[in-house]
Amino acid sequence: MPSLLIIAHGSRRAASNDEVRVLADAVRAQADQAYDHVESAFLELAEPSIPAGLAALASKGATDIVAFPHFLAAGTHVAQDIPEAIAEFSAAHPAVTVRLTPHLGASVTLPAAILGVAA
Amino acid sequence: MPSLLIIAHGSRRAASNDEVRVLADAVRAQADQAYDHVESAFLELAEPSIPAGLAALASKGATDIVAFPHFLAAGTHVAQDIPEAIAEFSAAHPAVTVRLTPHLGASVTLPAAILGVAA
Repeated sequence: MPSLLIIAHGSRRAASNDEVRVLADAVRAQADQAYDHVESAFLELAEPSIPAGLAALASKGATDIVAFPHFLAAGTHVAQDIPEAIAEFSAAHPAVTVRLTPHLGASVTLPAAILGVAA
Repeated sequence: MPSLLIIAHGSRRAASNDEVRVLADAVRAQADQAYDHVESAFLELAEPSIPAGLAALASKGATDIVAFPHFLAAGTHVAQDIPEAIAEFSAAHPAVTVRLTPHLGASVTLPAAILGVAA
């Protein structure tokens, strides 16, 4: 099975970074049939970085990684910075496939999730 | 049925605000059995404001509005600014109920949505 890296922006506010880690825990708890490993990483201001997060998954044996930008808007971070960070990892790990998904704000699964928030 | 207001931060980047409006369109297209009306509003930097968005729903006949903070992190905006904007509306519209949900980053529906992004 593939592994999943949830990529957040990162914040100077530790509680915001912890929210991402808690989210990764919740995804991991539901991931039995979908992903071998689920981890989080940060573009900036928090650890691990994107290349370090991908390398951590590779060190667990992951050869097929789904990289999910946990971003609401398609700005420069999504269009440029995240792909560059992934390319940095891929140059050093050519045997590992990294598949970049649409960012959260454009995910086809988001409208249904929002419909469920008040249920 | 209730109506839904998707509350985003708002951006100087028009494309980011349009992403929220497109998302609201997508939610609306799936909302037949859940919400009478689905609209978006912005805390700052874009229109409509939160009180104006709530008032627009009320003008369509909504008396029960679910207010959903489309925010990833539980910062001051979620904890304080959005409740204050809702209170401003509620003071002027006591007959309309506004129910504030957890923000997106803490929504119980988010982990499953993330699990589906690579499907």
